[in-house]
Order: sequence, then structure tokens, then C-alpha cells
Amino acid sequence: MLIVQKYGGTSVGSVERIEAVADRIQRTVAAGHACAVVVSAMGHSTDELVSLARAITREPDAREMDALLSTGEQVSAALLSMALQKRGLRARSFTGWQAGIVTEPVHGNARLVHIDTEALQSALHGQVIPVITGFQGISGDHVTTLGRGGSDTTAVAVAAALGADLCEIYTDVKGVYTTDPRLVSAARKLDVIDYDEMLELATLGAQVLHPRAVENAKQFDVKLVVRSSFEDEEGTMVMNTGAGFELRDAVTGVAFEREVARVALIGVPVGRHGLATVFGRLAEDGVNVDVIVQSVVEQDVVDVSFTVKEEDSERAVRIVKSLQADLGFRDVACETGLGKVSIVGAGMISNPGVAAQMFGALAAADIPIAMVSTSEIKVSCIIPAQHVEPAVRELHAAFLE
Amino acid sequence: MLIVQKYGGTSVGSVERIEAVADRIQRTVAAGHACAVVVSAMGHSTDELVSLARAITREPDAREMDALLSTGEQVSAALLSMALQKRGLRARSFTGWQAGIVTEPVHGNARLVHIDTEALQSALHGQVIPVITGFQGISGDHVTTLGRGGSDTTAVAVAAALGADLCEIYTDVKGVYTTDPRLVSAARKLDVIDYDEMLELATLGAQVLHPRAVENAKQFDVKLVVRSSFEDEEGTMVMNTGAGFELRDAVTGVAFEREVARVALIGVPVGRHGLATVFGRLAEDGVNVDVIVQSVVEQDVVDVSFTVKEEDSERAVRIVKSLQADLGFRDVACETGLGKVSIVGAGMISNPGVAAQMFGALAAADIPIAMVSTSEIKVSCIIPAQHVEPAVRELHAAFLE
Repeated sequence: MLIVQKYGGTSVGSVERIEAVADRIQRTVAAGHACAVVVSAMGHSTDELVSLARAITREPDAREMDALLSTGEQVSAALLSMALQKRGLRARSFTGWQAGIVTEPVHGNARLVHIDTEALQSALHGQVIPVITGFQGISGDHVTTLGRGGSDTTAVAVAAALGADLCEIYTDVKGVYTTDPRLVSAARKLDVIDYDEMLELATLGAQVLHPRAVENAKQFDVKLVVRSSFEDEEGTMVMNTGAGFELRDAVTGVAFEREVARVALIGVPVGRHGLATVFGRLAEDGVNVDVIVQSVVEQDVVDVSFTVKEEDSERAVRIVKSLQADLGFRDVACETGLGKVSIVGAGMISNPGVAAQMFGALAAADIPIAMVSTSEIKVSCIIPAQHVEPAVRELHAAFLE
Repeated sequence: MLIVQKYGGTSVGSVERIEAVADRIQRTVAAGHACAVVVSAMGHSTDELVSLARAITREPDAREMDALLSTGEQVSAALLSMALQKRGLRARSFTGWQAGIVTEPVHGNARLVHIDTEALQSALHGQVIPVITGFQGISGDHVTTLGRGGSDTTAVAVAAALGADLCEIYTDVKGVYTTDPRLVSAARKLDVIDYDEMLELATLGAQVLHPRAVENAKQFDVKLVVRSSFEDEEGTMVMNTGAGFELRDAVTGVAFEREVARVALIGVPVGRHGLATVFGRLAEDGVNVDVIVQSVVEQDVVDVSFTVKEEDSERAVRIVKSLQADLGFRDVACETGLGKVSIVGAGMISNPGVAAQMFGALAAADIPIAMVSTSEIKVSCIIPAQHVEPAVRELHAAFLE
């Protein structure tokens, strides 16, 4: 098999960790597999580079920021190559430009355009393990970076471009859990999860795998495994579970989030195309809107509520207020101190009544529901933040124990 | 004027130092000059990277070592660019490959082949200050480094390739001195020094400017200034002093070295081409031989002595002994605990008797001379190490006060 292995920052956080990673790669090769490796920067080194830049200027140039940050992965790739060579393996470090990783001409958050795999293919043909810097690419002769979750994205893209049989994402957790094991002791590791379920869980706060990487993996049908570089246990396979759907449990996991705020526009006249303006402006200003609910109050007038991160709420209210005269709504209200619980499962599609069961479980625990949002494989409830933990325990017990 | 400014590791050793360097560049630009900048890695960051590699393996792969070390200058170049931009200047960082700095395909100690200045020229045309990583280049798609003194070499080469009017080397000393001011309080800073004198002084231990950079500057007629980035004082101009020779003082400076060892081959039969073999083998094994003296003992037999660094002496003796049977010399002796003092001056050429004056000064101070070596602009004496400091004081007083 050709396996792409990605090691995150904690997995290569020290010389000892790099040695452990090299041992693992050696075992993979000894088992008869070909291997390409993608690495993140060591531990907190990226944060340290960011601090240096911030000490110079509050608004560092995006191009120079990329030039600066891209050095972190270069260090870990070179060190891991040395550790592999010490074990008698052939290895070579590749920066973004050496690996032919081409992105759009954007700094700080570039999307991948394509990977010119010639150099990587030629290394693999020569039995050389390519050790590729994650998170970075090139546009023209500028170094670009991919933003948050960039190394996962690099790994999936490299796996897709090389036609790898498997992409293993090594991290500091053992896999994807039914919910956060720190909160619910009965939480268990999933053996398999569907791309769509993983997307919902990742977006909702299970910070194991970046949604962007999952999206790409789904699109290019790259089989992912999330597992720990600190233990030998099997991880969680993320793949297209396809025909298995109807045989599965309705719910795969319980996700949650704290520090949610709700902004409500009260008395919005219908038919002025106002909502497009509101959410367009919020997106332009970098405010991420999560759940949106619209309710009919009377004829031609609706109330619209949406949730944002608590830290963005003041900015969101300011933006909305600036549009009040144009759009003609009556008032704006903002409520902080909220949270979100969600149940996720591809099996929901063929299991009607799951949402009702969720509302029942929350009601039985006297947990008030402020907003509800559903998708084909997810039901989310906005609830007061102090109820998030008991809600997660109730829902895990109800659906997964 | 187009000025290339090079800032060494201590000059960019902290955020505060980088800000000070940016101020200086700003003043240069405000004075109406165009400016290209070459930077070293911050302070001890290269040493820290070396330690990381050594913690993994005693014999790191040279290619990976270059990949690792080249990140140090990328960090300082990006940070300095940000600091310049904060001041409203246009600036852009360039790595070795982005600056078109092509080297031979060697790692760790590559020589420059040429600089493809298109990108740099285009930056300068657009009033953008290029901030170039010193010490590194590219060969094919491999990152290479230039070895010790590499950033000085980069600066001189960039100055030559761009046809700059001046190349300023900023460091933590105020310029080139008649001798080490820590040893001789009467030592004074030179305003001007000839390339050849600088070469002799640099090789002999005045660690201000790397000999390689001086050689390149001489060859391409690049005017150098060595000065401090910590003060505003004028530095020392290194240039072709040309016709001024005969009007000058005979001696420009006194250089010295400690930890010298002498290896003596006793009773070497003449005419066997043996010396070429000896010194060829030493060079192959990386032993740097400095002074070589041959004296006739009797007909057809000579004694040959040479000096090496003390740390290399055991290896040198081992190599020489391995050739004893082939070359037929009688014995090998080795003496450690030696040092070297040298007087340097282009003016010596037209001032006969300088060597005699030197021997006289040393004799008057009861300092025994073990070996003598002369060139057109230098006289060196090997003396016991404990006499080096008094010898430097005597010679400085005799020639330079």
C-alpha cells in the first residue's frame, strides 16, 4: 500500500517525539508499505513566530507572515528526515515549492490549486520517503500558507494526488469519539465514521480533523484514519460508509459548543431582500454565522435569529444596526451565555423521530431549548451555556449507551 | 547610490535590534539612496537549530542540514521586512531561491555560481527594498548553504551582481583595528584598508569579515565598509588603495592566533615528491595547514615543519606517520602550546627592513621565535603561546603607536 502519514504539532513537538515518529514510519515501511509523510511545525513553534511578528507590528504583511510561518514546518521536515536516515531509511524533506504544491495567489488562507507530483513521484520511485512540509504551498514565486487545519489539507491533497491507498492523520487523541471523553466517561471511540458525519462533528467542535480536509477527502474519496502517534491503538476510519447506512445506529456522536450568542432581528418586513444584505455584510467582515432561524410573526413581518461566537457578538450587532434604516426592521436583541448541543448520524436519514427523541431527553432534564436547527444527518439545539454539560450526558446516555 | 547593507546575527538578534536596523535602513533611504539588504539568522538561532539536529544524529545529512539551517535567515528576513513596512517603506523578503542565488551542487559549504538578478532588479525598480536571506542559495531544487561567513559572501555577491556603489557590512564591532583592542588599549580603528591587507588580517584571526567575502569583493571591485550597527560612527573602508601604497605606513595591523601546533618531519630525503603526498593527504582529510618551512639539514635531506590548529595536531601526526614507510623520512615530532603573531601592511612592499625590525622587537622582549613565514605584505612568527599577548603589545608599540 501507499500510505500518506500526517503528524501534527504535538506529534513532532520534541526531538524525542520526532524519534518516536521515525520509529513508526520505519515500522510502516518494514510492513511492506510505501510511505509519504506530511508534518506540522514542532509544538508551539508557530505561536512563537507569530509572537515575534506581533512584537514588531500589529498588522504584519500577509506575504511576510507566510514567509515567516512557513519556516516552522521546514524545521520539522528536515529533522524528521535526519531521524529516518539515522534508521537507514532513505528520506528527503520537501518544502511546499519543492513538493510542487500550488495554491491560489492568496496569503494566510490560500486554497490548493493542484499538486505537481513529479518530484514526489520520483522520490517514491527511488524508494525515498518524501517528508513534506504541511500548511504551505507556492503561488508564482511567493510562499503561501493554507490557514488553520492546513497540514491536514496538505496530507489529504497529497494522498489524492499520489493516489494513495490510505491517509493516516496522527494526532494526540486516539480517534473520533461519540462525544468528548473528558465530559462523558462512557464516550467510546468510533471504528468508522462517514465523511458527512465527520464534517458535522468537526464543525461542531470535535477538533480532531479540520473540516476542510474532510471535505477534500470526501471529494477525492481519500480514506482517512485518525489515530494517536502516542499509542499503538487502531484509530477511527473516516470514509464513505455507503450502503451500510440503513443498518447503522441512528446517532454516531454528540457534539457541543460553548460561548454562543444569539442575535435577533425583530420585525423584519418581508420581501426587501434584506437578509442577503445582512448575512453578506457579516461574511465580508469575517463574522461566522452558524444557526439561522426565521419565524413568521404576522403577515409580511418575520423575526430572524442567528448565532455567532460570543466574541463576535458585539461586532455582529454593530453591523446589523448599521443596516437598520435600510432594511426597516424594528429592533435588534442580543443574548449571550448560550451553547449548542448536536446529535450527528448518517443513520438519521432512515430513522425518523430522532429529533423528537432529542427534544424529549432535553425536556426530561428540564433544559430549555432556545433555537433548533436540523440537517439530514444532524439536529442542533441552542440552549443556555450552563446546561451544555448535562445535556451532552443526557443525549449520550439516550442515544449511545 | 545603490547600497547593499548586510546585518549579522547580533545586529538582528532581537526584535529591538531588528527595529534599530529598520531605523537605519529608513535613514539610508531618506538620504536618497536605494537599498538592498542581506540578513543573517537572529543571534544564536542557527546554533539552536544545529543542537536540534545533533540531538537526533551525530552525522546529519548535509542536504537536510541545509534545509534546516536555511530557515534561520528566512525568519529574520521576514521580520525585518515587516519592520520596514511598519515605517511606511516598501519591502519584501527574498529567500536564496527567490533571489536567484545559484550555487554549485554542494551542501554545507557551497560556492556561488551566479545570481539571477531579475527578481531583485524588478523589486528595486518598483522602489521595493529587497531583504535577502544571507548564507543560502539554491542548486537545482535543493537548498544549499555557503558555510562560514556565508552572509558576508552573499552581500558582496549581491552588490557585485547589482552593480552597487557600496556594500556595508554591519556587525558588532566598529571597524577593523590595528590589533585586538581588548589586548592593546592603544589599538585604533583604521579608516581604510586594502583588500589584500584585510585578507591577511582576516585569515590571521581578525574575525570581522570573512576572507571569502574579501576575496570576492577584491575580484569584483566591490567597495566594502565594515561598521557597527550599534553606533553611528563611521567604519573602516575596505577597498583597492592602489597608488597610495608607497605613501603609507609600512604596517597596518598586528594579527595573532593562539592554539597553534607545529608538526616536524625530520630527515626527509629530497626528490621523492613526498611533500606533495603529505600535504595532499592532509588537505583531503580536512586538516588546514598554515605556515610551512623547509630547512636544509645535509645534502639530499631536509627537515620540513608545518603548523596546524592544536585540535588538528593528533590527526595530522597520524596521517603523516601513515606515510612514513612510503616517504622514508626518519621521524615525526609534534609541539603544541604555540601561537602566531603577524604584522600586515601593503606598505611593506616599499619598506624593506620591516621583518628585521620585527625580529628585533621580539628579541628585545626575550620572545623566542620558532618559525618565520613571510609574504609580500605580511611577516608571521610562530612563538610560544604564553608570549603571544606581550608580543602583540610590543609589535603594536613598535609599528603603530
